[in-house]
Amino acid sequence: MQNAYVAGAATTRFGKFPGATVRSLTEEAVSAALADAGMTARDIEAVYFGNAADGVLSGQEMIRGQAALRHTGLLGVPIVNVENACASSSTAFHLAVAAVTSGSVDVALAVGAEKLTHPDKTRSFAAIGAAVDLLQLDELKAWSRSGTPEKADDSKKSFFMDIYAANTRAYMARSGATREDFAEVAVKSHRHAALNPNAQYRTPVTAEEVLTSRMVSDPLTLLMCSPIGDGAAAVVVCSPRRARSVPGPAVRVRASVLVSGSDRPDAEPAAARASAAAYERAGLGPQDLHVVEVHDAAAPAELMVYEELGLCGPGEGPALLKSGATALDGRLPVNPSGGLLSRGHPLGATGCAQLVELSGQLRGRCGPRQVPGARVALAENGGGFLGTDPAAMVVTILTAD
Amino acid sequence: MQNAYVAGAATTRFGKFPGATVRSLTEEAVSAALADAGMTARDIEAVYFGNAADGVLSGQEMIRGQAALRHTGLLGVPIVNVENACASSSTAFHLAVAAVTSGSVDVALAVGAEKLTHPDKTRSFAAIGAAVDLLQLDELKAWSRSGTPEKADDSKKSFFMDIYAANTRAYMARSGATREDFAEVAVKSHRHAALNPNAQYRTPVTAEEVLTSRMVSDPLTLLMCSPIGDGAAAVVVCSPRRARSVPGPAVRVRASVLVSGSDRPDAEPAAARASAAAYERAGLGPQDLHVVEVHDAAAPAELMVYEELGLCGPGEGPALLKSGATALDGRLPVNPSGGLLSRGHPLGATGCAQLVELSGQLRGRCGPRQVPGARVALAENGGGFLGTDPAAMVVTILTAD
Repeated sequence: MQNAYVAGAATTRFGKFPGATVRSLTEEAVSAALADAGMTARDIEAVYFGNAADGVLSGQEMIRGQAALRHTGLLGVPIVNVENACASSSTAFHLAVAAVTSGSVDVALAVGAEKLTHPDKTRSFAAIGAAVDLLQLDELKAWSRSGTPEKADDSKKSFFMDIYAANTRAYMARSGATREDFAEVAVKSHRHAALNPNAQYRTPVTAEEVLTSRMVSDPLTLLMCSPIGDGAAAVVVCSPRRARSVPGPAVRVRASVLVSGSDRPDAEPAAARASAAAYERAGLGPQDLHVVEVHDAAAPAELMVYEELGLCGPGEGPALLKSGATALDGRLPVNPSGGLLSRGHPLGATGCAQLVELSGQLRGRCGPRQVPGARVALAENGGGFLGTDPAAMVVTILTAD
Repeated sequence: MQNAYVAGAATTRFGKFPGATVRSLTEEAVSAALADAGMTARDIEAVYFGNAADGVLSGQEMIRGQAALRHTGLLGVPIVNVENACASSSTAFHLAVAAVTSGSVDVALAVGAEKLTHPDKTRSFAAIGAAVDLLQLDELKAWSRSGTPEKADDSKKSFFMDIYAANTRAYMARSGATREDFAEVAVKSHRHAALNPNAQYRTPVTAEEVLTSRMVSDPLTLLMCSPIGDGAAAVVVCSPRRARSVPGPAVRVRASVLVSGSDRPDAEPAAARASAAAYERAGLGPQDLHVVEVHDAAAPAELMVYEELGLCGPGEGPALLKSGATALDGRLPVNPSGGLLSRGHPLGATGCAQLVELSGQLRGRCGPRQVPGARVALAENGGGFLGTDPAAMVVTILTAD
């Protein structure tokens, strides 16, 4: 097995773009990633295309990548359409890395794209709702709403947030985490995103604003939930040979581990299993990390994931946050991009977007949000739910070469 | 790169199963394939799950494999959900082979499953209709219906068949192929399927019956079109080390080539490009083949694919058929399973189903439809349309080891 490198990486801006399509977003991200790598479409030998919601939202199923890439000059090469809910494009990246490390291609492209906004917002929520096992839907709804003091208003939220809320209530009970802690996650996230020109939300918020924003699903308020938005991200992955001719510093992929969720009650969380395997493969541990992007689809998830990744001990998530260690000027900044909460969360684009951010950090290109001296980075990207565990989980470790 | 082997392979019966779900079909095929390989779920290190239509038909998107495999004991390992229209599960197989040849796993599982029947048949047709570039839909519809003497009745067919019909009219003009030739393809296919206990149609038909069956899209009559149906297929792929302990004779994967369609007018057809690459990789040519499965979603496609695979020269498809060479007792039997026309075509299941048939042929297990002495086999599986070319194409070459 040879090493794989990130040769180029780029996202579109994230936000609500009524005139955009999956195709237009894809074209913009792919074109920028190729330019970043100093390559053209002719250099790409295989494409892995991640999208999660376009089947429901535009009706385009089955050949989403071919349709989106139609005018990019990429047609003809192998194109694999990949779904894994919110981990669709980190799964695409996982396959691109595998294609390169195996030596079967020199250059592969991973793409994630999503046009999640829709004139009828309930359609966007319905799309997100397809990321659970539909044969378990009624059971899951009943479970996620038990113990909720508020009556659910399905027209103003994704049912998905009920699952996050139920997981959060269990986390509060075992860790002592409070609503105020979750508000601080959102405050940090918005503060970071204010420094990211591609972020969906660029205005800082106060804890008071987070806590008093509309209740979505108790205890999650609106500003504790990632927004509906559009965007795309693309990452060019290449062999060591090709990495030598890349214009910028190349970033080395030290581990890309995909696991599926387990609904066995005694199973470790997917993020714990995937990160343990990734640390082992990379020969690195949590103490070696300089910058991290986590899947904060809801604010409390960031604290839970701190623990699952071993950044702190069980129940210590709130304390790690309060210590300031995970802020941009802290010891181990988490979500310098603004994360899903503030950079935005166009489902299929998120996995690659995290890797674009981390590649930028490792190449020292993040301007005012640069983590000084960042040389080891980790991304955690979950997708869907199977019971209470993510259905898919990808943990990636990248290093400055 | 190490070799990859088919360790076990199985399908469900194909047909219209009102009580079945993607999950129940998946469970049946996976269980049978594992038994065939002498393995259990614990042996599987990665799963690639192909499905094409369930997003439209049941609403299950994003985590189709995790949902379908929930009770199989396979959760926890990497699961990648793959779409490539009617080539979804050959693409899944392609990824399983890549995972094994790279040495990253010893045993991978490819699955294809589809519950395509629906109480409202127009829903099934609508699902199939998502396999084209929807941004080109109007243009494609206008093109495919130009020159059609009959008024389209969309309630009784998939629009997809209009594309096959338009391609067929062009083929007739350049090759001299006739409706009678296409009828003979269907007659052969039904004759073969009568010997396949898992086929959807097991009753032989006459050319007269094919020609006088309802006109679907000129010149395609109902019996020249693959039926709507349900089914699943699973293939266990393993390393040389594991192949030694497989109970039956193992089958070697000599090439698995995926390409995407090109809509450049001067591009070679996808099947020609993919098969040329597969022959080169395998160090074999069309003259070496003993048995072939092709993607006859409509009867004329079989003749066109003869030419694209190099089984005969340009325009010689009808003559090759008439010579009897591609019948079960001929020199190079094509579609001994009955093909898509008669074994059935549950979209996402078809690619793996072809490989199950060919693995059976190479292991001498096909009973009354066994091709004597078959040691070299090829499968051609196309998916979707991009313009008039398939959007995805997988050509696989297998040999008795």
